[in-house]
Amino acid sequence: MAFTNTNGKRVSIIGASGYGGIQLMRLLKYHPDFEVTYLGGERSSGQTWNDICHFLTVDKSLVIEKPDLKKISDLSDFAILSLPNGLASQITPELVEMGVRVIDLSADYRYRSLNHWKQIYIQESSKYERNDDDLCIEAIYGLPEWFSQEISEARLVASPGCFPTASLLPLLPFLKQGLIDTDGLIIDAKSGTSGGGRNPKEHLLLAEASESISPYGVIGHRHTSEIEEQATNVSAKKIQLQFTPHLIPMVRGLLATVYCRLRDPGLTAEDCTTVLEAFYRNESFISVLPVGTYPATKWVTRTNKALLSVQVDSRNGRLVLISVIDNLIKGQAGQAIQSLNLMAGFKQETGLPTDSYYP
Amino acid sequence: MAFTNTNGKRVSIIGASGYGGIQLMRLLKYHPDFEVTYLGGERSSGQTWNDICHFLTVDKSLVIEKPDLKKISDLSDFAILSLPNGLASQITPELVEMGVRVIDLSADYRYRSLNHWKQIYIQESSKYERNDDDLCIEAIYGLPEWFSQEISEARLVASPGCFPTASLLPLLPFLKQGLIDTDGLIIDAKSGTSGGGRNPKEHLLLAEASESISPYGVIGHRHTSEIEEQATNVSAKKIQLQFTPHLIPMVRGLLATVYCRLRDPGLTAEDCTTVLEAFYRNESFISVLPVGTYPATKWVTRTNKALLSVQVDSRNGRLVLISVIDNLIKGQAGQAIQSLNLMAGFKQETGLPTDSYYP
Amino acid sequence: MAFTNTNGKRVSIIGASGYGGIQLMRLLKYHPDFEVTYLGGERSSGQTWNDICHFLTVDKSLVIEKPDLKKISDLSDFAILSLPNGLASQITPELVEMGVRVIDLSADYRYRSLNHWKQIYIQESSKYERNDDDLCIEAIYGLPEWFSQEISEARLVASPGCFPTASLLPLLPFLKQGLIDTDGLIIDAKSGTSGGGRNPKEHLLLAEASESISPYGVIGHRHTSEIEEQATNVSAKKIQLQFTPHLIPMVRGLLATVYCRLRDPGLTAEDCTTVLEAFYRNESFISVLPVGTYPATKWVTRTNKALLSVQVDSRNGRLVLISVIDNLIKGQAGQAIQSLNLMAGFKQETGLPTDSYYP
Amino acid sequence: MAFTNTNGKRVSIIGASGYGGIQLMRLLKYHPDFEVTYLGGERSSGQTWNDICHFLTVDKSLVIEKPDLKKISDLSDFAILSLPNGLASQITPELVEMGVRVIDLSADYRYRSLNHWKQIYIQESSKYERNDDDLCIEAIYGLPEWFSQEISEARLVASPGCFPTASLLPLLPFLKQGLIDTDGLIIDAKSGTSGGGRNPKEHLLLAEASESISPYGVIGHRHTSEIEEQATNVSAKKIQLQFTPHLIPMVRGLLATVYCRLRDPGLTAEDCTTVLEAFYRNESFISVLPVGTYPATKWVTRTNKALLSVQVDSRNGRLVLISVIDNLIKGQAGQAIQSLNLMAGFKQETGLPTDSYYP
Repeated sequence: MAFTNTNGKRVSIIGASGYGGIQLMRLLKYHPDFEVTYLGGERSSGQTWNDICHFLTVDKSLVIEKPDLKKISDLSDFAILSLPNGLASQITPELVEMGVRVIDLSADYRYRSLNHWKQIYIQESSKYERNDDDLCIEAIYGLPEWFSQEISEARLVASPGCFPTASLLPLLPFLKQGLIDTDGLIIDAKSGTSGGGRNPKEHLLLAEASESISPYGVIGHRHTSEIEEQATNVSAKKIQLQFTPHLIPMVRGLLATVYCRLRDPGLTAEDCTTVLEAFYRNESFISVLPVGTYPATKWVTRTNKALLSVQVDSRNGRLVLISVIDNLIKGQAGQAIQSLNLMAGFKQETGLPTDSYYP
Repeated sequence: MAFTNTNGKRVSIIGASGYGGIQLMRLLKYHPDFEVTYLGGERSSGQTWNDICHFLTVDKSLVIEKPDLKKISDLSDFAILSLPNGLASQITPELVEMGVRVIDLSADYRYRSLNHWKQIYIQESSKYERNDDDLCIEAIYGLPEWFSQEISEARLVASPGCFPTASLLPLLPFLKQGLIDTDGLIIDAKSGTSGGGRNPKEHLLLAEASESISPYGVIGHRHTSEIEEQATNVSAKKIQLQFTPHLIPMVRGLLATVYCRLRDPGLTAEDCTTVLEAFYRNESFISVLPVGTYPATKWVTRTNKALLSVQVDSRNGRLVLISVIDNLIKGQAGQAIQSLNLMAGFKQETGLPTDSYYP
Repeated sequence: MAFTNTNGKRVSIIGASGYGGIQLMRLLKYHPDFEVTYLGGERSSGQTWNDICHFLTVDKSLVIEKPDLKKISDLSDFAILSLPNGLASQITPELVEMGVRVIDLSADYRYRSLNHWKQIYIQESSKYERNDDDLCIEAIYGLPEWFSQEISEARLVASPGCFPTASLLPLLPFLKQGLIDTDGLIIDAKSGTSGGGRNPKEHLLLAEASESISPYGVIGHRHTSEIEEQATNVSAKKIQLQFTPHLIPMVRGLLATVYCRLRDPGLTAEDCTTVLEAFYRNESFISVLPVGTYPATKWVTRTNKALLSVQVDSRNGRLVLISVIDNLIKGQAGQAIQSLNLMAGFKQETGLPTDSYYP
Repeated sequence: MAFTNTNGKRVSIIGASGYGGIQLMRLLKYHPDFEVTYLGGERSSGQTWNDICHFLTVDKSLVIEKPDLKKISDLSDFAILSLPNGLASQITPELVEMGVRVIDLSADYRYRSLNHWKQIYIQESSKYERNDDDLCIEAIYGLPEWFSQEISEARLVASPGCFPTASLLPLLPFLKQGLIDTDGLIIDAKSGTSGGGRNPKEHLLLAEASESISPYGVIGHRHTSEIEEQATNVSAKKIQLQFTPHLIPMVRGLLATVYCRLRDPGLTAEDCTTVLEAFYRNESFISVLPVGTYPATKWVTRTNKALLSVQVDSRNGRLVLISVIDNLIKGQAGQAIQSLNLMAGFKQETGLPTDSYYP
């Protein structure tokens, strides 16, 4: 972190002691250009960062405070919100109004239509009143590989969910080029338990989740609609797809297996690999593996990378796309900082890890 | 194990110290009607069972011997073969000839056509010469919920693979009744690492496989053809499907997520649940969960149960089937003993566990 | 479970949906002599057992009720209490008074002196008022290998903690025989996370506890005093020892490594193994391994067994004792049923598993 | 990696595709001052680095070669040997002779006396002939917090084992100051399975090692003598101690729990914490935690840090020391690079991570 002339580079983190907040602190600690100037949080308010994080001490250990908008605005140019769904919408309009540029890690601004959000996040919409249709329309979906220009100019970035990130990265190029049927898409996704957050819940206990795998939200998981909205936008066709998440007995990592039908069943795995490679040629955080090499989530844990792999059933032209990310980095905090870099005019790669410590 | 008048109840286990063999020993130790009379194995030959298995000592600790067909035939009525693919075919014909009824846990007799086997198991077929077409035709596929009568009379049972077992149990009833399209079936399967056997391999090390998930055999995994053969037989239509296995960081357990299209998109999840329930009404080892309840593999580990669950996307009539088993019990040794029970004229449930110790 | 003429064999479980309660239900489901006639619990009250435990359904699915002493007394001969420390003491005196024989899994009656309990369980003693000194004196410490006669006649059994069980089993014979120094004993213990219970806590989340090991309660863990009291009783010398528990990234299992000094440094590992073997010769649940064979907790998970091993540093006569148990079975519910068997006049082995499913 | 004017900064890695080699590559990839110029290995020889490590690609992907001493000498100033015990001694003398400064990760030069090594590493000494007594005497034990000056001038550094590193760091200051009895020291250590290397072995399979803990090498583990030699040197008294390693179901991380007796039982935990803090005040890689805060291995995984914690039993002045490290970084490759930095005249902190990504 730089400490001099930090104008334009001061960052607030709201929701600091959850897993998202911890990743942000870890990444920003070594970022050459940003300084964390304010830490907001409910659970840990009143404590200093170093008191609660012996595993990640910082030189300038701020006190975590109950979020105070005036103070955030005074102290920071950017605010990254790592809050429960619905809650972010209660402070974002005012922050943006005050001139703070916001990156929101929740789902609150991921839909262009507020009504759509209200249909999907029913419980949250009954708890929190929202009238910020305009911000929903204005917000940019923070997938830098697809919307870097828009992100760089945005006042509000809605950072994507971990499942949508892993699903969309391999899928969108094929939709964009019209190479696959828009009907019958199936995404079978697998995530480590840190995706469920740090708030203790029975099903996330080691005793429950370890040595077991189970699906959840089969049909109707909320990320389905988020993926569908982006896929629909890119393909210019209304897309309805199947999305099934599974809880995997591991801390971090997310794998998406995407099943498609090629329009031209004559395309080979090599052809489809070339399509992906061409699309992401200039992207530092995306690598396409050689045909026949399949990634393990461990290859990307604690990095901002996505590894993609392609296979084709030559009998019938079915396409299987595989993608792995770290759910807390490329799927959350790392991608947010990628956007933050763009917003601040830095190279998007700045301060983001690309190499795992294996094993 | 009973020790008097064991005629017709004497069992040899060949391949005793692998995971399959250990499960068989564990289950037969408390089986009221069978006695293990011979243990064959290469790796541990010359040692007694109790010497190598402090965690599972038996009263009558046999010496593990290099398999001797004459001795097996003299000492046993049944032989369960837990051997690498290809190797079983080298002793099965002679054993059957000698009057020993065989349950083979390998893939050697799972295809009605020996040629088909040779196409799929290319490496094995180049290593082992086979001319036992007739036995391939005669062998019964050991899925007791579907072929109990045939199994009870069989000389040779080809016990199914773990992936086919988990995949076929929820799928076959819908195929049988013609309720789903036979085209476009997708099986996304997830297995614990014990499915890879006890022989040490790098990718199965805890340091490699833990905290990670990865697909393998994408397109062309050998269990694809095994599932297709059974699905084709039941539906009377040629079925080509997608099957993608994934390695999960857990010891035991297997989950299959099966994606189908309902022919009548008006069917509900409740309707489809009723279909499954009706099919398996009298089956002790299969339970269908209420709509909206999804199983975890942990619910069935160390049991011979399969738990099934159904969900339908009411927007478009897509059907998602979920099934969990223990890969080493219902997916291997337990199912073999279920067949053994039938062959010996006992109730198929005898000696087989149905309740997990949770968590 | 037997359902006819259950007089004298009716069991209530209070605290049914925690891990202790689930183990009790699993074990009693197949016990030939007991019937569970009442389920008490706060969290799940109003729901039937089968509603909350799809993984362990029973024929006679009772409704879990807020504990009602009159009803417990009417419906049962025995009550097993699986409640938080302190809470058990609020209902035990009345239950015993009403003629219900109680097995308490908490620490409430593990100390002969109520004052001692109050010193150790300070928080609980400030929350719950207790004047049941007499019951503390009367209660029998439920370690059946040491106190089977007393247990069989007891009105109240205080079932030992998991750490004391694993620590005392290898240690007590050497103390009893005066073979080791009573000074300088060190117990370094390692437990799976299920020992922390089913109530969600941050440090027991898979994301926190997995891929990590940490000590807790270093100096002054409450089980220290429990172990010291029993060790002191058996050795007839005041014992102060070091006990350090560690949290291990696994669901079940507990290993204790106990360091002692032999009085006679000439004793060999074989000698010491013989000592242990002689002590536990008639005990079905305890096995002593050959010198040089060390147990893994996995060898005993989901069983009521303890495996012991002994090693001696021939340079200086230091003795290292190793013991493994399943913390929820021999360390909790299984040991309780072992006591229950004794109290009801059955063989202590009845209905208790001794063989793990490996791996 | 810097690529210009690399004189004096060229590094060979021998044993590149094991876990040690991979860590070295990961760390050196981002080291500002060293360049990896040669990769030696048996198993992967003939393949390029990028072919075998999709998870860690480098710009300059070298071919892994069967070690060629002339070439190593031509191409490098330093060689880090990550080879099986015994094998390193077969090439080290010649390399040193040729002017290559060597850091050896094996045990070959950790004993001042070759005879001592031969007694401990019996099997290896029967396989490999050694006469390099002089190098054994010359080699510096690579614990930089204790021997930084000697390391900076060394031709040959014997990098410590992971267990000795974790054990010695908290223990040596108390021995040095004469604050504890030199008799009766007990080290109970716990390590993740990556410590067993990447070569597949049955007991390191996930199916075997997961969900289990077991001791190994009880009395007589080879690291005992290594710890004893260093402890003896520092305390100037002959030390015989107990050391018991345990295998923990996790990939990385190592925790040592060290039990001592204070000479002055009046010392408090705070006093002893101050002793440690004073000793390591200027050491970037060692932090002492506040009394009552105990570290988890996860706090240091993938870093070169050691976290220490102290507790005292005020009843009797027993001292418990706790230390955690990452077995592959501070316990192996990171510590080697710490030495390498010193040898090359750089700050020892250069290129070494100190902050974990939690969780």
